[in-house]
Amino acid sequence: MTEQKKRTTIVLFSGDYDKAMAAYIIANGAASYDHEVTIFHTFWGLNALRKEKLIPVSKGFLENMFAKMMPRGADKMGLSKMNFAGFGPKMIKNVIKKHNAVPLPQLIELAREQDVKLVACTMTMDLLGLQEKELLDGIDYAGVAAYLADAEDGNVNLFI
Amino acid sequence: MTEQKKRTTIVLFSGDYDKAMAAYIIANGAASYDHEVTIFHTFWGLNALRKEKLIPVSKGFLENMFAKMMPRGADKMGLSKMNFAGFGPKMIKNVIKKHNAVPLPQLIELAREQDVKLVACTMTMDLLGLQEKELLDGIDYAGVAAYLADAEDGNVNLFI
Amino acid sequence: MTEQKKRTTIVLFSGDYDKAMAAYIIANGAASYDHEVTIFHTFWGLNALRKEKLIPVSKGFLENMFAKMMPRGADKMGLSKMNFAGFGPKMIKNVIKKHNAVPLPQLIELAREQDVKLVACTMTMDLLGLQEKELLDGIDYAGVAAYLADAEDGNVNLFI
Repeated sequence: MTEQKKRTTIVLFSGDYDKAMAAYIIANGAASYDHEVTIFHTFWGLNALRKEKLIPVSKGFLENMFAKMMPRGADKMGLSKMNFAGFGPKMIKNVIKKHNAVPLPQLIELAREQDVKLVACTMTMDLLGLQEKELLDGIDYAGVAAYLADAEDGNVNLFI
Repeated sequence: MTEQKKRTTIVLFSGDYDKAMAAYIIANGAASYDHEVTIFHTFWGLNALRKEKLIPVSKGFLENMFAKMMPRGADKMGLSKMNFAGFGPKMIKNVIKKHNAVPLPQLIELAREQDVKLVACTMTMDLLGLQEKELLDGIDYAGVAAYLADAEDGNVNLFI
Repeated sequence: MTEQKKRTTIVLFSGDYDKAMAAYIIANGAASYDHEVTIFHTFWGLNALRKEKLIPVSKGFLENMFAKMMPRGADKMGLSKMNFAGFGPKMIKNVIKKHNAVPLPQLIELAREQDVKLVACTMTMDLLGLQEKELLDGIDYAGVAAYLADAEDGNVNLFI
């Protein structure tokens, strides 16, 4: 009988650089210990999956406002603490560089190389007016049912 | 032998509209997949259970200040991001309406119809000076011991 | 055959007084119900483990800035909501006192007496420039691998 793989399922709700870093560090760790890992991006966490380039799509007025106010991609996200109008993220990125740690965009790439399943929550994409072509290519799209199916047999479930 | 029901237990610590929405969406999803679901409201999460109407109760000075500064009920809660002095919640409520999504007060009603157990943490009620008659009727009251009893055999445990 | 102990593993990412209180209340509850409990302090959660006294250590410029801007120890941490430039924490501490609840520094002491394992995340210590002698004596030091080893067989896993 084959042993079932352990499973780590993370809801990334937060749009903060530091919290997303924590999510991806845990996800990459779990993947390297051979867990099946899913990160389910919802609400502001979707911003980590946005392409940096402005993708021209037609949107309603409110959706356009959200799109403009929210950061385009992991590298543009702010900190949950000590953001200081964008100075905090610079400090963090400087110490990451100095200590040879891995910045968030590369943590996301690494996760993809390790087959971490990156899921965008379709319900909140709809709410915030985000469209598939604005998000990274090759990710999955799903709703709360798929999240629960992953999580209910999981070993490590986190909401970040 | 009857199979044991799966169990989802959520600590709702946050008093943010968007985080509470996420908690109740997951809870309602889990309930519709036949999980036993508990939302344990503690600290600012208790505000989601407050009645909208001002209930006259006698309180100490500090408790009165907390009561006045905290939102009365789910509909009055702010956003964790982009709150913009109350404009953010209006935007979210507008897109919820536009996309036929379910606003938070109705998500809470739906949870009650689905027998999601709504618990108010008695220890933090005491700290913040909230009294039973200020909270929705028919909810449960418990402390950390009851939370742990629910959570320790659970499948999905989240802190939101 | 001896029954295996239940296990509660908490990631304390937040540097907020109220969130750290919630983490330590759950941890102390779980320990008193005979769980094996670990609190893994990462990012701003490390501040809960800092000694109050200024410990003279040599640091780089950025690390010095972080050290100066971050609170030294649990008692100096702010609130996640209604911080009001430090007035909120005073209010909370006053109601804690009034209601004979346990303030955060004592919750931490209690956790240590109950053998809750307090771990400092070495990767984020490095990033934020925190050194072992600045943190409470007798705690553990580990990385994400140790966290996952604890969490993957756990009953209650939370990210706070």
